[in-house]
Amino acid sequence: MAENFVVVDGGVVAPKGFKANGHKDRKYGAALIYSETDAVAAGVFTTNKVFAHPVALSKDVLVNNSVFRAIVANSGNANCFTKGGMDDAKLLVKKAAELLNIPENQVLSASTGVIGRRMPMDIITTEVERAFENMSSENSNKNASAAIMTTDAFPKTIAVEFEVNGKSVRIGGIAKGAGMIAPNMLHATMLGFITTDIEISKEDLTNSLQKATDESFNNAVVDGDMSTNDTVYVLANAQSGVKYIDCKDKFDSALAYVSKELAKMIVSDGEGAKKLIEATVYGAETKEDAKKASMSIIRSLLLKTAVFGADPNWGRIAAAVGYSGAEMDMSNFDIIISDISLEKQAILVKSGEQIADCGTPELKLAEEIMKEDKIKIIVDLKMGSFENTAFGCDLGYDYVRINSEYTT
Amino acid sequence: MAENFVVVDGGVVAPKGFKANGHKDRKYGAALIYSETDAVAAGVFTTNKVFAHPVALSKDVLVNNSVFRAIVANSGNANCFTKGGMDDAKLLVKKAAELLNIPENQVLSASTGVIGRRMPMDIITTEVERAFENMSSENSNKNASAAIMTTDAFPKTIAVEFEVNGKSVRIGGIAKGAGMIAPNMLHATMLGFITTDIEISKEDLTNSLQKATDESFNNAVVDGDMSTNDTVYVLANAQSGVKYIDCKDKFDSALAYVSKELAKMIVSDGEGAKKLIEATVYGAETKEDAKKASMSIIRSLLLKTAVFGADPNWGRIAAAVGYSGAEMDMSNFDIIISDISLEKQAILVKSGEQIADCGTPELKLAEEIMKEDKIKIIVDLKMGSFENTAFGCDLGYDYVRINSEYTT
Repeated sequence: MAENFVVVDGGVVAPKGFKANGHKDRKYGAALIYSETDAVAAGVFTTNKVFAHPVALSKDVLVNNSVFRAIVANSGNANCFTKGGMDDAKLLVKKAAELLNIPENQVLSASTGVIGRRMPMDIITTEVERAFENMSSENSNKNASAAIMTTDAFPKTIAVEFEVNGKSVRIGGIAKGAGMIAPNMLHATMLGFITTDIEISKEDLTNSLQKATDESFNNAVVDGDMSTNDTVYVLANAQSGVKYIDCKDKFDSALAYVSKELAKMIVSDGEGAKKLIEATVYGAETKEDAKKASMSIIRSLLLKTAVFGADPNWGRIAAAVGYSGAEMDMSNFDIIISDISLEKQAILVKSGEQIADCGTPELKLAEEIMKEDKIKIIVDLKMGSFENTAFGCDLGYDYVRINSEYTT
Repeated sequence: MAENFVVVDGGVVAPKGFKANGHKDRKYGAALIYSETDAVAAGVFTTNKVFAHPVALSKDVLVNNSVFRAIVANSGNANCFTKGGMDDAKLLVKKAAELLNIPENQVLSASTGVIGRRMPMDIITTEVERAFENMSSENSNKNASAAIMTTDAFPKTIAVEFEVNGKSVRIGGIAKGAGMIAPNMLHATMLGFITTDIEISKEDLTNSLQKATDESFNNAVVDGDMSTNDTVYVLANAQSGVKYIDCKDKFDSALAYVSKELAKMIVSDGEGAKKLIEATVYGAETKEDAKKASMSIIRSLLLKTAVFGADPNWGRIAAAVGYSGAEMDMSNFDIIISDISLEKQAILVKSGEQIADCGTPELKLAEEIMKEDKIKIIVDLKMGSFENTAFGCDLGYDYVRINSEYTT
């Protein structure tokens, strides 16, 4: 890796002083992430104006407290649009606090699953107990990441390490979310839980997480719908003995990397999603324009289906950029389709001129590239110096099948 | 009809003093609409920053001239991203002007079809000639509406009439566009051509068209992608002897009705679209909020697939409104699913409280309604007095099949 850090095993328990575990029994699961010492925390939440009870509760807890020790999360029920849902959200936190012997206001929580149905608290608290029983298991990270899965086809976890003055700092994360939506879920909620042993203030951690999220989870599009439960947390417990101020850039880029890798795992997961699409827009007049244009490509239904069919239909890319709202000049921009390693690059439009047409080597190369599992779309708007990369997936028959099945 | 007008036959030739015709031979077609006397014109075009040559040409012609006599349109080629495309666009106009014996700057034009390929002008001008040969045919409106079809399953046409001081005014229109996208098209362009025999200034006509378009074509969503060629024109030739000033509201509502009916035909056309969805959002704080919320519902992939599967998954409606950007209070809003006649209405959420749950009569009724071909979703945000209705269609396997097939 060209970056200043290496990938290590262990996910959320890779950083010093963290424990975790999870347990899932058929539909319902629970995960615990625990710091042995006081930690600071930061969180980002769905901006959907319809949001779940644990989102409301945890936002509040996060603002009003400075020390945190744990995250508790359940799968199988989103605790959204339910009567008594706030009581249930508090009960989940209370259960975790009791087991871990810490104050309730040091516990952050999240839920994912069905909406509009009361949480089966007996089942869920039992899962929390089971997760707690085995907090020192060798498989604790794996168990935690598996316990929060709903329609996910695989657990998502990553950790990195970097050195600062001979001391190592680690950042680890788990996530859930998939390109597939279960018949009886509102939508595949994205959850991301990150731990780190850096010493950092709440304010710096919040800023760093916000930046990392903007570059990662907020650039990830499965179907453009936004969940009522999306949540990302970071806990930082200072156990590495390294201060943020001594490795600001390194930490920020490592946190962004961890977040991006988790976001990419999310968009490439699921039966419905067979291909990962990365769209990078360079040369935008503003960062906002770069974001608009790259997200517009990734959101385009026509592009998603074209990728599903391995069809190098670059006109759909041009149109999606054109209606994105980003400033552009159609007589001077480039479109390139590439494999993810950037070894094979097919230039389709150069300075506003169509290069790829039937029978050209460029279209032939683009066809070849479109058959790969990971596809990179590169657009240079030539208007300025801003860029953004958005992540998405293709859209095929399975998406329709699963999402059109009956909920109840 | 409760409105102050009646539906009549004839489409674009229903108003006095208009002729039309079209001809199509396999892939390529052409249509002519002609006013026997001078007319004023108004037009609205795609706001996509990537746009076709006829759009660039006609925008210019429309701004720089006050008298118009004809519209010429071709199907089979979009004349977008082509070398020499502006010459071809001018040649199309020239051909129509020569045949009709009118100045070139009195002709508006539009194209729809494949992008990135040079127009086969010999074939297309031949189709224009064939359309011209039979301008007085009984089937002239039908021929014109059929000639501009690409992936459309049926031609789209409507006309209305209303009385002002004993004189009748007529508005007629044809349109193309479909829920289906051909494998080798960029996207199903929407074209709408409207004629009327009212006497009106260019400025008033432009304002009236803009309002009508905002309520109709701009509320219609097939897949959220915006074409490079979308165009709507109105020609008004004053032959009714009725002045706009004497029937402002009547005319505006009749023009809006014609536009809406054409827009609804577009979203309900196509193999891929089996169901029409109308989403009305009431009680929004601003008109913009009403638009955002209703369009967000119609655009939601999860909702589109739920409608395809006849699944009353109201959580997806709540979430789509929640992330639309419209102001709302999740503890006080209503969601209703209804048939199009509003006879059967299932109240799913009332004042922020979930009403429909497994086993309730409301969910049972909603299930029944979801099986209909036309479904109405009603949301009351209870924030203010603005409303908007957006039109859309479901998304099923055929959409994926057609749009993932290879372009070339």
